[in-house]
Amino acid sequence: MTALLRCWVETANFPDTPFPLNNLPYGVFSTGDTAPRCGVAIGDMILDVAALESAGLLDFDGTLGTGTWNAFMALGHSAWGRLRAQLTAMLSDGADQQEQLAPHLVAQADATLHMPFTVSEYTDFYAGKHHAFNVGSIFRGPENALPPNWLHIPIGYNGRASSVVVSGTPVIRPNGQLKGPQDDAPRFGPSQRFDIELEMGAIVGQPSDGPITVAQAYENIFGYVLLNDWSARDIQAWEYQPLGPFQAKATATTISPWIVTAAALEPFRTSTPEREKPLLDYLTEPGPMLYDIELSVSLAPEGQPATTLARTNYSEMYYSAAQQLAHHTTSGCPMRVGDLLGSGTISGPTPDSRGSLLEMSWGGKDPLELPGGETRTFIADNDTLGLHGAAKGDGYRIGFGDCFGKVLPARPV
Amino acid sequence: MTALLRCWVETANFPDTPFPLNNLPYGVFSTGDTAPRCGVAIGDMILDVAALESAGLLDFDGTLGTGTWNAFMALGHSAWGRLRAQLTAMLSDGADQQEQLAPHLVAQADATLHMPFTVSEYTDFYAGKHHAFNVGSIFRGPENALPPNWLHIPIGYNGRASSVVVSGTPVIRPNGQLKGPQDDAPRFGPSQRFDIELEMGAIVGQPSDGPITVAQAYENIFGYVLLNDWSARDIQAWEYQPLGPFQAKATATTISPWIVTAAALEPFRTSTPEREKPLLDYLTEPGPMLYDIELSVSLAPEGQPATTLARTNYSEMYYSAAQQLAHHTTSGCPMRVGDLLGSGTISGPTPDSRGSLLEMSWGGKDPLELPGGETRTFIADNDTLGLHGAAKGDGYRIGFGDCFGKVLPARPV
Repeated sequence: MTALLRCWVETANFPDTPFPLNNLPYGVFSTGDTAPRCGVAIGDMILDVAALESAGLLDFDGTLGTGTWNAFMALGHSAWGRLRAQLTAMLSDGADQQEQLAPHLVAQADATLHMPFTVSEYTDFYAGKHHAFNVGSIFRGPENALPPNWLHIPIGYNGRASSVVVSGTPVIRPNGQLKGPQDDAPRFGPSQRFDIELEMGAIVGQPSDGPITVAQAYENIFGYVLLNDWSARDIQAWEYQPLGPFQAKATATTISPWIVTAAALEPFRTSTPEREKPLLDYLTEPGPMLYDIELSVSLAPEGQPATTLARTNYSEMYYSAAQQLAHHTTSGCPMRVGDLLGSGTISGPTPDSRGSLLEMSWGGKDPLELPGGETRTFIADNDTLGLHGAAKGDGYRIGFGDCFGKVLPARPV
Repeated sequence: MTALLRCWVETANFPDTPFPLNNLPYGVFSTGDTAPRCGVAIGDMILDVAALESAGLLDFDGTLGTGTWNAFMALGHSAWGRLRAQLTAMLSDGADQQEQLAPHLVAQADATLHMPFTVSEYTDFYAGKHHAFNVGSIFRGPENALPPNWLHIPIGYNGRASSVVVSGTPVIRPNGQLKGPQDDAPRFGPSQRFDIELEMGAIVGQPSDGPITVAQAYENIFGYVLLNDWSARDIQAWEYQPLGPFQAKATATTISPWIVTAAALEPFRTSTPEREKPLLDYLTEPGPMLYDIELSVSLAPEGQPATTLARTNYSEMYYSAAQQLAHHTTSGCPMRVGDLLGSGTISGPTPDSRGSLLEMSWGGKDPLELPGGETRTFIADNDTLGLHGAAKGDGYRIGFGDCFGKVLPARPV
């Protein structure tokens, strides 16, 4: 399971490709003026599976030509397994279908990537313990850092699905109500503390209409993307009591363009950290449901190369996506194909493994120095922020494609 | 404008009908095994406008046969005005089309009502000052009742669109994590403080892709429904810090089955109450944008008649739906056709005008006595809760249809 599967697309065998045959991530692409359609990344190419279905080489009820993976996800597990098995067979070194498939390979360099799925609803969690501890320490001191419910509940809130965008989409710095502790009244203007949050996003691939177990939740998750939950810390500080973040989190949430399936991540399953307090039964995992995925954050000022600001790992999460999804259904809340669950910011235990500028600059008190000599507490206009991630196997990597966005100046007020 | 428009459907002229010709609210209905389709309430009948479009008597690009009003809403203002004008003309006393239309009238008693539109995303606000003051007083005392931001921001949070259901849908009491202040650890079980919230819901009928003014927001609202935001107060108390309500509000939100258009409510426009602190410019209303709509809450224990628990008015809101929608876009948040904005609980200044059991029973301390001798602090199993509303004109009423739900016992844990 953990060795490179060799592919007749030569670049899929390169040791540093994010898209070997072991991966087969699902995206939506277009070339020139053609309509967006489903594709699968392999090496530096995209296999046009919509065209394969049109040509009769695949048969998934026409779902691959819909310009989104939702209809395919709705077909369920047997279709998920069948497509992966067929693609693996057809792309393996020495496969008979090389001649038939070759005309349906498109260079990634020639393609535009679109949202890989339609986000039904978006929920964001707060399930990284180092992040929650750091943020709590910044605002309340280390002795009161974790809220009393934190070790019992995967804390989450509903986000805004309409604001989820694919990597590369520019992000306009938000305006909003701002009020410092010393100000008499709020004013309306551009956020001065605009930030990123390094997260993973889990995509619900099967619906549920009542409470489900953690084991069922694990089965219902189709795949994962990198997710940057852009956050205006100053807007949030003034608006969030008593009902939580609202406009602070509604400007944009950027995801990486390729859905890496749970099947591709199977060799990288790992357990959540040891519990500090016992969980209620409904949250107990029957086995390892988290993944070992190396993650990093980069920042590139306008016209300058990107600098890595932090490195961490998805395995730092205190709660897995399966636990979050199970908790999400406790009230009877129906879940739908295309629901997106953000993990919460993924920070590690050390200063160089923090998943937000809020933590890296410790609330803005300790500016970061960039190699070009500039400093940052929060994002400056025209900075490009990127998230990067890969699971590392024996001689291969399972990558997600980059998740980046350039922050443009705010609209005039 | 404010007198009854006479209609050749006789029951539409009865003084107590919620659906005179002045109203023309939009719903989705089916009869027997037929597919759900768009209809318009008139007196005790439904005009099958999907059939009228099939018969060539109306032409709205086939949108009326889609089983939801979203596609029609997306056509925009000129279509909205044209349909209302055509229906008014065709249904007016003495209209030529009586013979053509009569076969397309269905008795409401024979029809099943469905969700009138597909909820894209659901946002719930907290914009009733009496409610916010009461809730704050219950939990923090009257001196700290209103959060510091409340008079500056229409406080809102994202809700869960998948849980919005049409009137009549049973509501299963939620299970969830519960922890009283004296408990050592949380437990998992049925909510003991399950409650209603009397609200109005505003439906976004036109999309926006960046910040819009209050005036634009007013134009983008297609219509209104009654809305009951079922709330588990005990689940909320334990989960809501620091990111707001989540599973406490995800069991169900019930809406009335008929969309009453902004056009029908035009004669009932009224101003929001006087500002206690000046608003920032972006929230200032250019004219009256709230409505005078009388509202009430009823409760019927199993097998007993309904008792009215409270009466209030939509005009009690401190912020209008237009102000809420404009605020919702400040961050650049895209809004879509079918977005639903809950007003927040609508309570009046007196004890008999409170829009939630939390307020009526003052946090559970003062049980309500029902006429049958039972008492209530929160909802008991098999209680049916109803919301009712109408704008009162000169000899006519603009009603919404009732918004009710019966609470069934929780699932076994």
